[in-house]
Amino acid sequence: MFKPKAIAVDIDGTLTDRRRALNLKAVEALRKVKIPVVLSTGNISCFARTAAILIGVSDIVICENGGVVRFSYDGEDIVLGDKNKCIKALEKLKEYFEIELLDFEYRKSEVCLRRTFDIDTAREILKGFGVKIIDSGFAYHIVDENVSKGKALKFIAKRLGIDVKDFAAIGDSENDIEMLEVAGFGIAVANADDRLKEVADLITPSENGDGVVEALEFLGLLRD
Amino acid sequence: MFKPKAIAVDIDGTLTDRRRALNLKAVEALRKVKIPVVLSTGNISCFARTAAILIGVSDIVICENGGVVRFSYDGEDIVLGDKNKCIKALEKLKEYFEIELLDFEYRKSEVCLRRTFDIDTAREILKGFGVKIIDSGFAYHIVDENVSKGKALKFIAKRLGIDVKDFAAIGDSENDIEMLEVAGFGIAVANADDRLKEVADLITPSENGDGVVEALEFLGLLRD
Repeated sequence: MFKPKAIAVDIDGTLTDRRRALNLKAVEALRKVKIPVVLSTGNISCFARTAAILIGVSDIVICENGGVVRFSYDGEDIVLGDKNKCIKALEKLKEYFEIELLDFEYRKSEVCLRRTFDIDTAREILKGFGVKIIDSGFAYHIVDENVSKGKALKFIAKRLGIDVKDFAAIGDSENDIEMLEVAGFGIAVANADDRLKEVADLITPSENGDGVVEALEFLGLLRD
Repeated sequence: MFKPKAIAVDIDGTLTDRRRALNLKAVEALRKVKIPVVLSTGNISCFARTAAILIGVSDIVICENGGVVRFSYDGEDIVLGDKNKCIKALEKLKEYFEIELLDFEYRKSEVCLRRTFDIDTAREILKGFGVKIIDSGFAYHIVDENVSKGKALKFIAKRLGIDVKDFAAIGDSENDIEMLEVAGFGIAVANADDRLKEVADLITPSENGDGVVEALEFLGLLRD
């Protein structure tokens, strides 16, 4: 039986529903967990630190799909990705599509775009730019190809002095694949992307936050 | 009996406990409310918009003690205060105290400081600077004297095409005074500052989020 020393949990689509509101049963369950809970998101660091404090879990967060990590609420953003690469790729895309930027000034490692163009065509265009395009289901992200939630989790594990294999990880989408792969135990919620389910050690019966509660129960993290 | 058309609710100390985590009973209750719920906070706009989406209420938020308002998640910050005034006051304070800034680059209308100095002395020093110092209990804020949550609420009411007196407002601290005064019905939670209780039409029996639930019940907003 896998006994995690810490757990990483995606936010959008995992702790939240399609409307992006928190599943309160999942929040209640996460507050009972006695090991560090690291929130992990494609969203900006300010979103992640706010979510961590309102949910009431550890201040350690992965943001921007792994491009930024933080270790404390009032601490610094640690930037792990090269935003300039992403901006060069963005300039190229602008030659082909009408682009709508989201949170541009807040993002430190990537650029985020509204889903207004064909992602496969865009991926073709950006070959050789050293970036990847992630579809979070909520937006497209142009991300440094050296960045992933998995690499960010390794960075955090090292800083915490634990093996990344001591982490369990829970997610729902494509951008969670590397995180589930590097963790010692990977869990996909029922609504997860098929590609994520393929790399998961466990798929929960329920969707979103209800699935998170099942995952925490399975891992024995809700016992007193 | 007062029947509000919209309601404004402070976050820290009202919807959250001392640890700053959400009271989940209050979140559940707010989701049942069928009129617009405007979150109102001394925190930055990114905190407020994140809180609104995770709690699952309206995107309309008051931030920075009234210095910034927003009407939609992906919309613009509307800045109602003069940050330059606050920076001039900050420079003066630096002559007297060791100052630790919080979220400096994220704040658009004010400056926020850790509570490391005597606020009454600071208020004396800053007479004539056109600013006020607000103690949120979590931090000190140097705010343009023309800014308040009350003025921001009036701005929002006008934009929504309702009278500010059609708002009910719930809060816990000094920076909520003007908001409770301009609203048609003001409610202080049990843990509120005495000065806020003085201007409140109702003081809830319970503290924090439990008090918010009582307030919503009192206003008849939790009936089906």
